[in-house]
Amino acid sequence: MTGGSYGSECGRLIVQGADRPGIVATVSRVLAEQGANIVALDQSSSDPSGGRFFQRTVFHLPDLPARLPELEEALGARLGEELGLEFRLVDGNRRKRVAIMVSRTDHCLLDLLWRQRRGEVQMDVSMVISNHPDLSEGVRQFGVPFFYVPVPRDSKAAAEKEQLNLLKGNVDLVVLARYMQILSGDFLTELDVPVINIHHSFLPAFTGAGPYQRAKERGVKLVGATAHYVTEELDEGPIIEQEVIRVTHRDPVRELQRKGADVERLVLSRAVTWHCEDRVVRDGNTTVVF
Amino acid sequence: MTGGSYGSECGRLIVQGADRPGIVATVSRVLAEQGANIVALDQSSSDPSGGRFFQRTVFHLPDLPARLPELEEALGARLGEELGLEFRLVDGNRRKRVAIMVSRTDHCLLDLLWRQRRGEVQMDVSMVISNHPDLSEGVRQFGVPFFYVPVPRDSKAAAEKEQLNLLKGNVDLVVLARYMQILSGDFLTELDVPVINIHHSFLPAFTGAGPYQRAKERGVKLVGATAHYVTEELDEGPIIEQEVIRVTHRDPVRELQRKGADVERLVLSRAVTWHCEDRVVRDGNTTVVF
Amino acid sequence: MTGGSYGSECGRLIVQGADRPGIVATVSRVLAEQGANIVALDQSSSDPSGGRFFQRTVFHLPDLPARLPELEEALGARLGEELGLEFRLVDGNRRKRVAIMVSRTDHCLLDLLWRQRRGEVQMDVSMVISNHPDLSEGVRQFGVPFFYVPVPRDSKAAAEKEQLNLLKGNVDLVVLARYMQILSGDFLTELDVPVINIHHSFLPAFTGAGPYQRAKERGVKLVGATAHYVTEELDEGPIIEQEVIRVTHRDPVRELQRKGADVERLVLSRAVTWHCEDRVVRDGNTTVVF
Amino acid sequence: MTGGSYGSECGRLIVQGADRPGIVATVSRVLAEQGANIVALDQSSSDPSGGRFFQRTVFHLPDLPARLPELEEALGARLGEELGLEFRLVDGNRRKRVAIMVSRTDHCLLDLLWRQRRGEVQMDVSMVISNHPDLSEGVRQFGVPFFYVPVPRDSKAAAEKEQLNLLKGNVDLVVLARYMQILSGDFLTELDVPVINIHHSFLPAFTGAGPYQRAKERGVKLVGATAHYVTEELDEGPIIEQEVIRVTHRDPVRELQRKGADVERLVLSRAVTWHCEDRVVRDGNTTVVF
Repeated sequence: MTGGSYGSECGRLIVQGADRPGIVATVSRVLAEQGANIVALDQSSSDPSGGRFFQRTVFHLPDLPARLPELEEALGARLGEELGLEFRLVDGNRRKRVAIMVSRTDHCLLDLLWRQRRGEVQMDVSMVISNHPDLSEGVRQFGVPFFYVPVPRDSKAAAEKEQLNLLKGNVDLVVLARYMQILSGDFLTELDVPVINIHHSFLPAFTGAGPYQRAKERGVKLVGATAHYVTEELDEGPIIEQEVIRVTHRDPVRELQRKGADVERLVLSRAVTWHCEDRVVRDGNTTVVF
Repeated sequence: MTGGSYGSECGRLIVQGADRPGIVATVSRVLAEQGANIVALDQSSSDPSGGRFFQRTVFHLPDLPARLPELEEALGARLGEELGLEFRLVDGNRRKRVAIMVSRTDHCLLDLLWRQRRGEVQMDVSMVISNHPDLSEGVRQFGVPFFYVPVPRDSKAAAEKEQLNLLKGNVDLVVLARYMQILSGDFLTELDVPVINIHHSFLPAFTGAGPYQRAKERGVKLVGATAHYVTEELDEGPIIEQEVIRVTHRDPVRELQRKGADVERLVLSRAVTWHCEDRVVRDGNTTVVF
Repeated sequence: MTGGSYGSECGRLIVQGADRPGIVATVSRVLAEQGANIVALDQSSSDPSGGRFFQRTVFHLPDLPARLPELEEALGARLGEELGLEFRLVDGNRRKRVAIMVSRTDHCLLDLLWRQRRGEVQMDVSMVISNHPDLSEGVRQFGVPFFYVPVPRDSKAAAEKEQLNLLKGNVDLVVLARYMQILSGDFLTELDVPVINIHHSFLPAFTGAGPYQRAKERGVKLVGATAHYVTEELDEGPIIEQEVIRVTHRDPVRELQRKGADVERLVLSRAVTWHCEDRVVRDGNTTVVF
Repeated sequence: MTGGSYGSECGRLIVQGADRPGIVATVSRVLAEQGANIVALDQSSSDPSGGRFFQRTVFHLPDLPARLPELEEALGARLGEELGLEFRLVDGNRRKRVAIMVSRTDHCLLDLLWRQRRGEVQMDVSMVISNHPDLSEGVRQFGVPFFYVPVPRDSKAAAEKEQLNLLKGNVDLVVLARYMQILSGDFLTELDVPVINIHHSFLPAFTGAGPYQRAKERGVKLVGATAHYVTEELDEGPIIEQEVIRVTHRDPVRELQRKGADVERLVLSRAVTWHCEDRVVRDGNTTVVF
């Protein structure tokens, strides 16, 4: 949890690419030359020879917003051009703007809204979009705009267009907090910001619909939830976080759903919190979570 | 865990069948009439109307071995004929005779042998059968016979016949403690005692071979193990117990295997312990674990 | 979780006392004689010889409310007088009336209110009492009365009297959802209904104030929460439920508090849910949780 | 788990001290100047201003054993003299020499011996010392020397002297794997290598003797185990690792001990594994575990 709390002058640098000797030293040197002090550093290699390299660095730099372009340029020269690495430079002071999409089930939604109010997550919830009007009052009590966008079976494309009109340019992240519609590939491409979904099973077990019913039928002893980035392939995106809870033969499907709901909101809130602190680095179909 | 420790005069009665009113009362009455005192009782219904009923009762009855036939007859009349229920009556004093089948990996095998030596499991390990000679010395140090039955690709049927010669009539349970060969349906039918397997994944995720490698590729955040009864359909039998452990992007496949091994031996030993205490009731493709 | 869902005609019978042969049979017989069908039965003995006996039975009896007095009388004769057992007979249709007491921290409070709204807990929240006015709006949005009763240091007795005026006769259970005042023995005696508290540590570790700070100083690797019945002795009452979560050297005290808060609300909601389903039986300073 | 597997040319550098800007950069620079490539780096600060700094770096340096003195000198000048930091430089190729002390209970001992044989822990078990002769055969089957040193109540000092004669100069670590004698402060001082103990409770709950009995009496819902460095103050040393397992009212004390034993061996083996990989840094009465 290092680095989430050093105020307005902290920046974050995420570096990834082919591993090779000297990356840590180069990053440290560039930051030092620019007057930045490293506050926290996490680093990982998938394999020391020929693997992938990941590093998240939190640094303190006075007048950070003004100094970012210069730092970006220096890093671009040394990390990008010389070492062939990708990097992202983030002003830790800028909270992510988040839209939450939801259907009728409120436990994940309320948990996120409540955590934002408590200041636990570095995000501003800009809006909630739902294909049902049911949760409007509960959302507006938190002072958050609620937009009702029905998704009729025969005009899903129109609904997605309306959703895009609301979202485009306004948010840095979309969170599907039990949104029971499949988003099209075109929507995802057009949206062009990360989308995090909570799936109500321990993926890859029980992909698709009705996971608790199927968990009951299969007689599993644990049920779980999975937060993942959404890709065009349903339930196949990179996993951010998972958790499980014990169930027994005594639990009917309804009780599995209740127990599962407690896991879902916890897993989703962790994934969103970590994403908003730039702790999650996508690597193909997996993630590195610092 | 009640009822595992009342010595030579305790019996166990497992009842299952279509649920209907009065089963608990009938069982209690028959036991009382026979002079048996209920020590522990667990009961469960899959659904109060039209569901399946399960009950495990531990009772104390002086001179149990001598009285069993009479009790069996009384139960047969009242539970079997009148109520149409299945039941099993077990002398709690009779330890299950167990054969362990294993290939080259020793962690599950040793854990079971250690637990038997400490008296933690109500079993006698009659023999260990392996398709590799590697573990013979370690097994024999425990005073347990080790039989090496190679399983060449082109004469698997002959190997199964040799295994059956060793097993038939000699054991009440076969435990596959990382035995890396698939048993044929004919073998299972002929063997005619329960077979418990440990699968190195959280089923139904990652059925089949190489689960840790595939868990790594899929980027899951938890790996697990599943103990289940073996049926003809590979990795599809009724699940007895499951457990998971947290992993991270830092863990290479080898580390997943190590962490998983700790879970495997724990899950398998729990399943075997519970089976030997007659706590596990099969119900179609699921189990009730009291 | 069996027995929480069979509607208006289900009763619950809790029996406890000195263990002796035949209790299960007697309970079954009385219920059968009265025309009640056992739906679920859980039973436990602390020790088969000379121990304590506990049983929770859920039964179906047509016209339950009208038939309760007769059943109570029959049980009184057979269980109370003949066997010397205590018993409680509960109409499963009657939801417990609950008061929540809270100070300034809202996570446990909101979680209970959400769960009530979703119908997850068999309770009606009659009122919230707080020694601070901060949470009034949030509570009233749920349609629940909020009473502000300040507790000045020098007139605690007067405050407790005011609280008793609100509570006496109106509630079956009081829940302390992070209420940061110690209740006097006189208050508890006068109140005369169970009081459940959530303590923010894994008791008996870190009794008293500031548990997360002390957990950090002691360098523990897990923090937890404990729900327990309140007795005159602070943090010493019978434990209903506990849970823990992993922390690391990286977590400052503030993060311990956040992680702990997730555990606190889960543990408290489980304890309240189980209490409201009459699953928790007090036994001296411990509990049996069916 | 990065950095445990890069063979004979990897070194480890542990740095700790008062936090100040530029430490990471300095370490990186010195290593780069010496021709070492950073393979893995973990870093942590207790507080960004005025806190304590910790860093564990795994690096690859050809001809490491020959180059260590030169590297040590360079680090001494830059980290020690200029920055006032403590550091330890370890040849990752040198396995720790370990003595295990045990009384009569074998589960922790066997687990460690078995893990060593599997190559899971970077240690060589040089000897086992016991105050009882019971486990000699089981130990010697692993090819490890077993020394029986009785500890009579009235000549404990003599026994400790005999133990020191065996240990001094021969081991880098002593592991108390359920050794039921208290070591004197003089012994610890004279021994002068770290001592890791497994305590059979979730410390600081249930310090001292009989923790499972007391856990049962207190009615806790989880029992646990704690691995910690031994200091003169009993059960008060820096905690390395902890874990818990769920128990219920049904578990008698004996079952708590069995469940606890599974946790104990897991927790102790983790602590020893991490210590042997130089992942554990002591910081006053707490630890940083990378």
